[in-house]
Amino acid sequence: MSKKASHIRLYVADDLLTQRTIILGREQAHYLVSVMRLAVGATVLLFNGRDGEWLARLVKADRKSAQLMVEGQTRPQSLDPALPGLTLLFAPVKRAKTDLIVEKATELGVARLIPVITERTNTDRVKMERFLSIAAEAAEQCERLSTPVIDLPTGLDAALKAWPDDRPLYFCDEARTAPLLLSVLWAKSSQSGDGLGPCGLLIGPEGGFTAAEREAVCAHRATCSVSLGARILRAETAAISALSLIASAYELVRTDLQ
Amino acid sequence: MSKKASHIRLYVADDLLTQRTIILGREQAHYLVSVMRLAVGATVLLFNGRDGEWLARLVKADRKSAQLMVEGQTRPQSLDPALPGLTLLFAPVKRAKTDLIVEKATELGVARLIPVITERTNTDRVKMERFLSIAAEAAEQCERLSTPVIDLPTGLDAALKAWPDDRPLYFCDEARTAPLLLSVLWAKSSQSGDGLGPCGLLIGPEGGFTAAEREAVCAHRATCSVSLGARILRAETAAISALSLIASAYELVRTDLQ
Repeated sequence: MSKKASHIRLYVADDLLTQRTIILGREQAHYLVSVMRLAVGATVLLFNGRDGEWLARLVKADRKSAQLMVEGQTRPQSLDPALPGLTLLFAPVKRAKTDLIVEKATELGVARLIPVITERTNTDRVKMERFLSIAAEAAEQCERLSTPVIDLPTGLDAALKAWPDDRPLYFCDEARTAPLLLSVLWAKSSQSGDGLGPCGLLIGPEGGFTAAEREAVCAHRATCSVSLGARILRAETAAISALSLIASAYELVRTDLQ
Repeated sequence: MSKKASHIRLYVADDLLTQRTIILGREQAHYLVSVMRLAVGATVLLFNGRDGEWLARLVKADRKSAQLMVEGQTRPQSLDPALPGLTLLFAPVKRAKTDLIVEKATELGVARLIPVITERTNTDRVKMERFLSIAAEAAEQCERLSTPVIDLPTGLDAALKAWPDDRPLYFCDEARTAPLLLSVLWAKSSQSGDGLGPCGLLIGPEGGFTAAEREAVCAHRATCSVSLGARILRAETAAISALSLIASAYELVRTDLQ
């Protein structure tokens, strides 16, 4: 495990199997050769979200391109530590904070990200390519074997309409009468069977939802209003904090099941 | 509560009591007058970490100075949502990430921050003034009535030597045989009495602790090695994630006690 952790991991689009040649694009080649100073003969790990993780050896390298030869599989896709049932619906906020949400959600195992446009969302902040590249880089660093799916931006109404009635949608309500998220997760994960199934987390924009939006959220049958405690958290802190709790509860249930 | 939330909150050093005049420094005056465009007659909330939270009215304002008159107390110091028993010992990492640790730790209620110098820590990254200003700003935004105490940087050995044997020091060990932090907190908080007392969280540098450092940490009687799950988290994510779990567990116990 420690040997693997010291390897550079790259997300690629290609199918991965033994003896396959992988030609890296300019950006990844530059990273390996100029930034990380790998030479021909060095090994890296590759994953594509489908075929698990593979050891590959650098067989050709210059500043503009790099060629790898796939050797053997190091982990099957089934060992992906991502959490397939976890979706984050988030209103994009300021650029650095949105980047942080995408990066940390990926690290924390989120399987699907849905950028939600609300009345107080500046749609200029929705940069799909940027989100995808941040998510890929975060996945490379955290031993995931997949990158999260990132949906095209959607309006709040459409997002709510598409959300299934039977899949809990945690909503961090600033009205502090809601139960603590940890206490809800605690109760669910001590239930027998699949008490902690697929779920979503909805995080509003910096200025909060409008009254009408909040009403629409609360009217959805799946909505489960929760509190994160007595302190007022910024939007990105609320996202990271709530995802940490949910990911840990999933992890705990998974551990118990083994 | 919603009325209070819409007020600007400022951390000041002055004692706070009715009719007291507070003269703000250049930076806070600029923020109120030029950035937030408050005019004479507007109200803000003040706190100093000792006297609770007070409503104050702007009585004189120009670009370089602002004068406030304290009116009445809005919250006693006893309602501070900070968590007095929570200490974070962290190895400063890259500048933006260290800033993030200080900001988020403050939002999540940490009472005391100890910058710890390890073999892989670049001491240039320890900027006490910067830490204090980030913590004050985060406290202003999250309804705390206190800023965290930030110790002068200390070596790892000295930090461990000063840490009491009977105060759990959670250590996010990358050796994944440790129990999940959530499961440890779960067990502690279901114990009767004060199962969840004061504790600390120790976060290492980006490159991790050296073998000798790790040994010293594990040899301390208070050390409780924990895991944050199957994914490898960056240092700052580990800090925010673990603090979210601990803060929520405290919050839950506090709620139960009420």
